[in-house]
Amino acid sequence: MSPPRVPRVVIVGCGFGGLAAVRALSKAAVEITLVDRTNHHLFQPLLYQVATAGLSAPAVSAPIRHTLRKEMKRGNLTILQAEVTGIDAPARHVTLDDGQALPFDHLIVAAGATHSYFGHDDWAVHAPGLKTLADAFNIRARVIGAFERAERCAEPAAREPWLTFVVIGAGPTGVEMAGTMSEIAQHTLAREFRRIDTRHTRVVLIEGSDRVLGGFVPSLSAKAQTQLRKLNVDVRVGCKVTGIDADGVTYESRSSPAPGAVEGSAAVQQHRLPSKTVIWAAGVAASPLGRALAASAGAALDRAGRVVVQPDLSLAGHPHVSVIGDLASAMSHPRGPGRGEPKPVPGVSPGAKQMGRAAARNVLARIQGRATEPFRYADYGNLATIGRKAAVVDLAVPVFGALRFSGFLAWLFWLFAHIYFLIGFRNRLYVLIDWAWAYWTYERHARVVAQPATAARGDRPAL
Amino acid sequence: MSPPRVPRVVIVGCGFGGLAAVRALSKAAVEITLVDRTNHHLFQPLLYQVATAGLSAPAVSAPIRHTLRKEMKRGNLTILQAEVTGIDAPARHVTLDDGQALPFDHLIVAAGATHSYFGHDDWAVHAPGLKTLADAFNIRARVIGAFERAERCAEPAAREPWLTFVVIGAGPTGVEMAGTMSEIAQHTLAREFRRIDTRHTRVVLIEGSDRVLGGFVPSLSAKAQTQLRKLNVDVRVGCKVTGIDADGVTYESRSSPAPGAVEGSAAVQQHRLPSKTVIWAAGVAASPLGRALAASAGAALDRAGRVVVQPDLSLAGHPHVSVIGDLASAMSHPRGPGRGEPKPVPGVSPGAKQMGRAAARNVLARIQGRATEPFRYADYGNLATIGRKAAVVDLAVPVFGALRFSGFLAWLFWLFAHIYFLIGFRNRLYVLIDWAWAYWTYERHARVVAQPATAARGDRPAL
Repeated sequence: MSPPRVPRVVIVGCGFGGLAAVRALSKAAVEITLVDRTNHHLFQPLLYQVATAGLSAPAVSAPIRHTLRKEMKRGNLTILQAEVTGIDAPARHVTLDDGQALPFDHLIVAAGATHSYFGHDDWAVHAPGLKTLADAFNIRARVIGAFERAERCAEPAAREPWLTFVVIGAGPTGVEMAGTMSEIAQHTLAREFRRIDTRHTRVVLIEGSDRVLGGFVPSLSAKAQTQLRKLNVDVRVGCKVTGIDADGVTYESRSSPAPGAVEGSAAVQQHRLPSKTVIWAAGVAASPLGRALAASAGAALDRAGRVVVQPDLSLAGHPHVSVIGDLASAMSHPRGPGRGEPKPVPGVSPGAKQMGRAAARNVLARIQGRATEPFRYADYGNLATIGRKAAVVDLAVPVFGALRFSGFLAWLFWLFAHIYFLIGFRNRLYVLIDWAWAYWTYERHARVVAQPATAARGDRPAL
Repeated sequence: MSPPRVPRVVIVGCGFGGLAAVRALSKAAVEITLVDRTNHHLFQPLLYQVATAGLSAPAVSAPIRHTLRKEMKRGNLTILQAEVTGIDAPARHVTLDDGQALPFDHLIVAAGATHSYFGHDDWAVHAPGLKTLADAFNIRARVIGAFERAERCAEPAAREPWLTFVVIGAGPTGVEMAGTMSEIAQHTLAREFRRIDTRHTRVVLIEGSDRVLGGFVPSLSAKAQTQLRKLNVDVRVGCKVTGIDADGVTYESRSSPAPGAVEGSAAVQQHRLPSKTVIWAAGVAASPLGRALAASAGAALDRAGRVVVQPDLSLAGHPHVSVIGDLASAMSHPRGPGRGEPKPVPGVSPGAKQMGRAAARNVLARIQGRATEPFRYADYGNLATIGRKAAVVDLAVPVFGALRFSGFLAWLFWLFAHIYFLIGFRNRLYVLIDWAWAYWTYERHARVVAQPATAARGDRPAL
């Protein structure tokens, strides 16, 4: 009699969720295959620093094989750099970009999210979003390049669109980008040009809802907005973008009567903002693998394309398939009776990590014939930084309740929290040195752009 | 009566030569315009470290505006990121890529060199060279990606071309690349894969002449060759490449009879080396601006397209135009009678720096109506590294004569010399930490590749 076959677990994606799942499974008697499109795990909360030339790419990302070198030694992990192009849930295999079929007994899909332009995919070329290292290099090249283009303009009037930067969407990424871009213009580049004064740069932050950082309580949103204005960011809330092209942004304001106008005369107003550099930080859509799961396993998708999962993170009718992280529309289920209603899990890295560990535990429960557990999200709070020396912090402290603060102390807290959670001792050391340096000098060392000056805008640049 | 106009000096290129010229001119009563295609000065001697994932791009390059921030404060320097598309020497202006004409009274052209495939431009897509940051990222993506592709192969036989790396040309860059690639396979990546053993990787170094490092004395070449063999590099001298395609390299050996063959039977033998990763380190061609100078000013070009200059680095018949660095075919003129014949200036960074300073002095001499001086190259020696702990050093010590050594001490010397000459204190600190780290751990932190797995090979990758 041959020994029973070791169960095969395939994990798609090595973000926070996939990485946590691999680690939670690696000591078990399972055969793990991890598939990722890239060769690195990306610490996305600091990606905006790569886009704004504060950090180099290797400081916020780590080779997957190096990150998982200890797990690799256990002999039950295979890592493949490949794109998953299809999932067949009933037949239990995923298809790779080279046509190879990868069979599984259990599948954890952690393929994450991408940008959504709300049906306006033609905006993508003019307003890049920030999800990958390639995105960050693209944005870095545009931002740094815009000042260079302004310096080249013979006509002062022609410089203005190059010195106007528009960020669309005032969530954490949009706020970080706008604050940092303003800092670059006010400090880093000041006095480095001859024909332009970078301190006259305009950074405009456009937000559809009525406040910035909508995921935070209104009092912290108000503090963030004050901080942004101090940093010279022109914040425009309640504005809906209706068009983006190579020369700027068109938007309508829903509730901003001109000063002195008759109260109640605030109709919808059309605005045009000439700008050569627009950053998209507004919409997120789930990975296309969500649609693959809908087709193959009849999974329900929410409005953003995320896969609606069972309380234990598996698919209804397909308990051997789990979906976690930004691709999942998951609920947090309080333990015990009378502990409240299930609440949606927010799309943040602690959520993805916790789902990764929970999905791994449930895979092992199924293998061992035990009951799975519903997922419960432990919320430790929410942080966002606005620029040098400013941040907002909303901590959920057990027993004590909410602890909210902003300003310099919040910024220090944000800084050390991010360094603490960064992948690998080495990256932590580097980011710490980089930030200490930048703090004293305002210098941003990663301002180099590999793209030649003549490369067409809209093309993906080489660095 | 209006005051006399300040002479306008245009400098094209911000490599070692152009940067030295700007610095030498910045305190003079001249109006300087520096034009470069990129936004950074590149420390090319360490570029191979970016290509082999040992250093990040910002560690070996510095924003030009930041590097020249002190000179900028003097108020007579304009920096433009632009491509020079034409030079009109008699009319005294250069043309930029946007059609703008930039007038000059004096011009210093320091546009450097590019790869030459000796008429086989179709090889470029299969065998990238190493001159720019974009080149380095391209090579990094191919080298790191090849191991990933090998791991994905189901058939062991299909893995071999992915695990065979060919470097063509055994000058300093080729030797550095081959040695470091072997180190990566033997140490950095060992034990990080499941299906392949990276220690079975083949690194082949093909050289047309009969020894490696032809710029050094034969005894140091022999030492370098021994070091390369110790590093598991398969060195093949006296071999001429006749074809490169997507699947490998074809070459002929001119003088390698099979072991045991009859002496004198060494006819030309054809060889085929299946490989998916080929690096070109063989040929250098001057910038196309050399041809522009030939057309506009009747400049003579040498076989590599370099501009033949007068003893004072100016063009014959056009004393207001100087050519320096890798674009110049210049001679070093010993001072005083009986000090020997003029000798060609080698294409190394000290040569470019010294030419930059000399051309600047001669521009000032012309402005002040003084006689120009012939250029004399001060040769302090030659260094090349082979890999971890191995290098060759050939120093020209005044009075003492030549001081030659190799091995670990040479490697330490090479290391500190490179760190000393690196641009900016910050970069020095970083490279020192990176190397100290790599020395103890064999880890290469910059292994991240922004390119998705499905990007077509031959395309320029995004990181």
